[in-house]
Amino acid sequence: MELLKKRILKDGIVIKNRILKVDSFLNHQMDIELFNEIGKEFKNRFKHKNITKILTIEASGIGIACIAAQHFNNVPVIFAKKYSATNLDKDAYESEVYSFTKEESYKIRVSKKYINSGDRILIIDDFLASGSAALGLIDIIRQAGAEVCGIGIVIEKYFQGGRKMIEECGVYLESLAIIEDMKDNRLIFK
Amino acid sequence: MELLKKRILKDGIVIKNRILKVDSFLNHQMDIELFNEIGKEFKNRFKHKNITKILTIEASGIGIACIAAQHFNNVPVIFAKKYSATNLDKDAYESEVYSFTKEESYKIRVSKKYINSGDRILIIDDFLASGSAALGLIDIIRQAGAEVCGIGIVIEKYFQGGRKMIEECGVYLESLAIIEDMKDNRLIFK
Repeated sequence: MELLKKRILKDGIVIKNRILKVDSFLNHQMDIELFNEIGKEFKNRFKHKNITKILTIEASGIGIACIAAQHFNNVPVIFAKKYSATNLDKDAYESEVYSFTKEESYKIRVSKKYINSGDRILIIDDFLASGSAALGLIDIIRQAGAEVCGIGIVIEKYFQGGRKMIEECGVYLESLAIIEDMKDNRLIFK
Repeated sequence: MELLKKRILKDGIVIKNRILKVDSFLNHQMDIELFNEIGKEFKNRFKHKNITKILTIEASGIGIACIAAQHFNNVPVIFAKKYSATNLDKDAYESEVYSFTKEESYKIRVSKKYINSGDRILIIDDFLASGSAALGLIDIIRQAGAEVCGIGIVIEKYFQGGRKMIEECGVYLESLAIIEDMKDNRLIFK
């Protein structure tokens, strides 16, 4: 997606050849017009999948998923919860996710009420790095007996290996910008 | 907002005369069509305020704020971060928030880059209870020398006192559904 790549080159900041900061438009301050273009592009790439629900994870996936849902006939959006929530149903699907950034594991949870065996689910998230969070979401959908119809990622850090993990699960992945590598604090797109 | 009140009565669950669970449409599974009606209503109530940015707080405010921004000429949306984020600028505005639900304090943060002295900011959140989170957001905006042009809340739990706290700060508050009290696990709207 050219518009997105241009924006990343214009406003993204590369740190230590590993971290890409895009918090001026993607995951702290959010550019809603750009999110609509992203939503359109996801629709274009998953248009024949008959999506019934979108699943994302708090916090930075939520805005993108909500705007994208408008391009999928306003299907409901569910966000998996990362932190202990006093008001979450005890009856929830759970999965363990390992964060390489924070070097610790955490649990993600979705109430059993909101994913059903007939659902055809699209996972949406802002970043794909090692793939742990995406694998956790796939696990939750499969526990519910629903179908994972694909994963839509805004920025994939290809060199961190997540794509391989997801493809090994037999899940279709589309990333709107794929960063093959970061060298001398510059980005190389795939 | 009649549509919202009807939805709360239909799908909301009252627990112990204190907690209102609306996670089937507001803060776990999200109804995007309803969010657009909410966004329209916020625009209607704050239309003369010349809003330049919307500020919310992770996680459940994000979806509502992003959809609402479309009704305010796609102004940027910023979400305050609650949890230690490795990728947040060290140069951030901070405020302390006390959670009565969890009986503990936590810090919220917004990078200094994204709020400027000329900004006219609308705060949007899903719930208003004691008002602590809203006060933290007001504090951050005022630290930046920007103007708090109002607070838009989806569901206000009037009996928890947040309105009084906000009005004492001189901030204009609009809530789309105001719950005066909860008795015998039923809702009394104001």
